[in-house]
Amino acid sequence: MRLPELRRLVLEANLRLRTEGLVRLTWGNVSGIDRDAGLFVIKPSGVAYEDLAAEHLVVVDLDGEVVEGELNPSSDTPTHRILYREFPGIGGVCHTHSVHATIFSQAGRELPCQGTTHADHFHGAVPVVRELTAAEVADDYETNTGLAIAERFREAGLDPMAMPACFQRFHAPFTWGRNAEGAVTNAVALEVCCEMALGTWRLDPAQPGLPPHLLEKHYRRKHGPDAYYGQKS
Amino acid sequence: MRLPELRRLVLEANLRLRTEGLVRLTWGNVSGIDRDAGLFVIKPSGVAYEDLAAEHLVVVDLDGEVVEGELNPSSDTPTHRILYREFPGIGGVCHTHSVHATIFSQAGRELPCQGTTHADHFHGAVPVVRELTAAEVADDYETNTGLAIAERFREAGLDPMAMPACFQRFHAPFTWGRNAEGAVTNAVALEVCCEMALGTWRLDPAQPGLPPHLLEKHYRRKHGPDAYYGQKS
Amino acid sequence: MRLPELRRLVLEANLRLRTEGLVRLTWGNVSGIDRDAGLFVIKPSGVAYEDLAAEHLVVVDLDGEVVEGELNPSSDTPTHRILYREFPGIGGVCHTHSVHATIFSQAGRELPCQGTTHADHFHGAVPVVRELTAAEVADDYETNTGLAIAERFREAGLDPMAMPACFQRFHAPFTWGRNAEGAVTNAVALEVCCEMALGTWRLDPAQPGLPPHLLEKHYRRKHGPDAYYGQKS
Amino acid sequence: MRLPELRRLVLEANLRLRTEGLVRLTWGNVSGIDRDAGLFVIKPSGVAYEDLAAEHLVVVDLDGEVVEGELNPSSDTPTHRILYREFPGIGGVCHTHSVHATIFSQAGRELPCQGTTHADHFHGAVPVVRELTAAEVADDYETNTGLAIAERFREAGLDPMAMPACFQRFHAPFTWGRNAEGAVTNAVALEVCCEMALGTWRLDPAQPGLPPHLLEKHYRRKHGPDAYYGQKS
Repeated sequence: MRLPELRRLVLEANLRLRTEGLVRLTWGNVSGIDRDAGLFVIKPSGVAYEDLAAEHLVVVDLDGEVVEGELNPSSDTPTHRILYREFPGIGGVCHTHSVHATIFSQAGRELPCQGTTHADHFHGAVPVVRELTAAEVADDYETNTGLAIAERFREAGLDPMAMPACFQRFHAPFTWGRNAEGAVTNAVALEVCCEMALGTWRLDPAQPGLPPHLLEKHYRRKHGPDAYYGQKS
Repeated sequence: MRLPELRRLVLEANLRLRTEGLVRLTWGNVSGIDRDAGLFVIKPSGVAYEDLAAEHLVVVDLDGEVVEGELNPSSDTPTHRILYREFPGIGGVCHTHSVHATIFSQAGRELPCQGTTHADHFHGAVPVVRELTAAEVADDYETNTGLAIAERFREAGLDPMAMPACFQRFHAPFTWGRNAEGAVTNAVALEVCCEMALGTWRLDPAQPGLPPHLLEKHYRRKHGPDAYYGQKS
Repeated sequence: MRLPELRRLVLEANLRLRTEGLVRLTWGNVSGIDRDAGLFVIKPSGVAYEDLAAEHLVVVDLDGEVVEGELNPSSDTPTHRILYREFPGIGGVCHTHSVHATIFSQAGRELPCQGTTHADHFHGAVPVVRELTAAEVADDYETNTGLAIAERFREAGLDPMAMPACFQRFHAPFTWGRNAEGAVTNAVALEVCCEMALGTWRLDPAQPGLPPHLLEKHYRRKHGPDAYYGQKS
Repeated sequence: MRLPELRRLVLEANLRLRTEGLVRLTWGNVSGIDRDAGLFVIKPSGVAYEDLAAEHLVVVDLDGEVVEGELNPSSDTPTHRILYREFPGIGGVCHTHSVHATIFSQAGRELPCQGTTHADHFHGAVPVVRELTAAEVADDYETNTGLAIAERFREAGLDPMAMPACFQRFHAPFTWGRNAEGAVTNAVALEVCCEMALGTWRLDPAQPGLPPHLLEKHYRRKHGPDAYYGQKS
C-alpha cells in the first residue's frame, strides 16, 4: 500500500472514533502500518478531531523516528511502535478512553465472554495489563506500556490476533486489528461489550458466561478458514 | 406486494435500525416477506449500513434458496426462514444486538410487564429462549435457533402475534411483526422497555408489575377489533 | 391568540419532544389551549413525528368535541381536557414516556427535591398519582386518568402552577405549563432530574434533599414577583 | 485581546456546551476575561443556546457593573466575578448542570482520581464546596457562592490552576481554565470522569485510586514546564 493511501485510511479510522462516540476531546489515536516499508502513520498529538486532515498525520519508522510530518506524533506513539514490533500480524492500533472500557481499566477487571456479541470479536476474556512501576513510569513510560502489554500476552499465551484488545490498568483500552479500520471496529465492540457486561451483572451477578461451544461457534463464524459471515473478498 | 416495493420497505426498515440507535457495526438485520410469492427479502451479510442500497438486498425462498441477489444473505437467514414458516401471521423479522435487550438475553432474564409502554406492544412477559445444545450448534446453528424459538412459543402456548419478541439466551433479541417496519418498531419498544426495567428495579427490586386490567386495557387500545389508538387505515 | 398561531406553537412543541430526546416512536403528545376561545390544539393519534405538519393537528373544545381536523386526536385527549378544566392557570399539557421519568412512574416513587436543578422548576417533591381501579379503566380510562391527577393535587393541596408535573403510576409522566412550550420545558426538567436522582442515590442512598432555604431561593429566582432569572419580557 | 475577539471566543465556548452535551435548556454559562481591561464577557440570562449570537453577550467589569450589552447577564455573574477576583491566573469560567457532575454535587461526594483520564486534567480529588447558610442565601446568594468556593480552595491549600473544578453542594459543578475554551474542556473532562467513577465503583466499590506516581506522570505530560503532550504553540 502506498503511503498516501495509508494516510487516507488512518485519517478515516481516526475520524470514525468520533462518529462511533469513542472519543471526547483529543482522548484517542489510531495508527496503521505499511509492513513492507516498515513505516506507520499516526495521529498528531493533541490535535482536535474536527480540524484533523490527512497532511497532519505523522509517519514514523519502527525505531520511533519521525520520517514525515511537521507535527509531533501522538504521545502514545512509543506504545504503538512496541505493539507493531511485538505483534507482527497486526496492521493497526487504536487507543481510546471510551467510557465503559475505561471503567474496566480503572477497576482492573477483565471482561469475561458473556455472549455472542463478545464471541464475534474476542476469543475469550479480555485481559487486564498490570500497572507500571514507578521506575517504568519515570523511564520511558509509553514504551514500557507497550512492553507490559506484550509481556501480559506472552505470559498468558494469548494470541493477539484472536484477542485484539486489553485494558491497561488505571488507564484505558488498547485494541488492534489487521488494519487501522479493524482496530477501531474492535474498539467499538469492546466498548459495547463492557457496557452490556455492567448491565448483565446487575441482572445476574453470577452470570456463568457463554458456554464454550457457543464461543467457538461464533468466533469461527467470523474468523479463520471456516468463517461464513460477510462477503467473499 | 411487488418485490421492488418490498425491497424498498426492507431497505428502509434496515436503515431505521441505525437511526433508532439499535445497531453498532453490522450487528443487525431485518427481513420482510411476500406471502403470496413465498419469498422474503433480507439484508446481505456483513455489509455496512452506510453503504446499504436496495440492490444489495437478497431474495430468498422458504426453502432457504437465494433466488435473487449477488451477495450472501445475512448469516441469520435460516432463523428468519424458520420464523416465517412457524409463525404464519408475521410479515417481517428483526434481529439486533441492541444494548439493553442483549443484557436481558445474556442474563437469561425474561422481561415482565412493568408498565403501559410494555403493554402497548407486548401482551405479557417477553420470554427467554433456551441456549442451544452443542449438537444443535454444530449442526445448522441458525436453523436450530429458529426451531428453539418456535418450540418455546409452542410449549408456553404463546401467540407470536401478541408476543412479537423473545430473548435468545446468551445471544440477543429477535422481534417480528406484520411487516418489516412493524418488526423494527417492536425492536425499539423492546429495547426501551428493557432499559426502563433495569431502572425500575433499582428503585423497587420487588416491582409488582402492571395490574392485569391495565395490561389488557393498553394492549387492546392498540391491538385487535376494539383498538382506538392511531388513525383508521 | 389566533388558532393558526396556536397550531404553529403546538406543532413546534411536539417536534421539540424529539429533538430533546423525550420520545421514541409515537409515545408522546403536547397540546396548547386558547382560553378565550375555549379550544385546544393537540397532536393526532399515532402519527409519526417525522411526518407531522400543522394541518394534522386537531382542534378540540372543552367538552371533548373535535371542531377542526380530519384525523383522530391523541388517545390521551380526554386527559388533557380534564387537566385544562381542573387547572385553570395552565396553557399547555405534555405527556411522554421519557425513560427516566417513566421509571419513576413504573416504580411508583415520588421524586424528592435533591438539588437546585429540581428547585428551578418544581416547588417540592413531584407526586405519584395512584393507579386507576378496574372500573375506572373500563369506563372512560383517559378521562379518569385526568380526574385522578386532579384528585391527587386537590387532596395534597398542591398548586399545579408550582408543581407542573406528576407520575401516573405504572404509566408515565404528565407535565404542564403556561403554554405548550412551557409544558415541554417541564418535561425536559423532569426527565433530567429523574436521571440525576437515580445516580445521586447510588452515591448516597440517604441523600437528605435540598435544604428548604435553597429550595425557596432557587424557585423564587425563576418564579413569582421577585424572579430575576432571564430577561424582562 | 480586543473585546470583539473575546466575544467571539466566549460565544463559541458557550455553544460548545451544547455540542458536548453538557447543557439542557438554558442550564449553563461560560465567561472569558480580558485581564488588561478588567472586563469579562458572559452569556445573557435565560437565552436559548439556539438563538445565542455574539451581540447578546454582556460585558461586565470586576465590580459587577454591566458596561456593554442590552440584556441581563447570567444570574450567576456574581459567582464568575468572585472567581476572577480570587483566582488571578484564570481566564475563563464555566458553569453547567451536566448530569454526572451534578450527581456528585447533589450527593456531596468528592471525585477521587481513579485513572489517567482524570490525572490528565485534575491534580488530585475534585473537592466539594459546602452549601451556603440561610443568611448567605438571603444576602447576595451568587456572590457568596463564589466566596465559598474561594474559601474552600484557600483552606485546603488547593491551587486553582492545578484543580480547575469543584462541586457546589446541592447545586452543580463550576470549572475554570486559562480561557473560556479551557474552562469548557475542563467541564467535559469532569463530566466524563464522574460518569466513569460511577461505573468503576460498580465494579469495585473499594477502588484504590491512581497510584501517585501515575497521577504525577499524567498531569506533568500535559501541564507545566516538562509537558510533552500536544504541539508547541
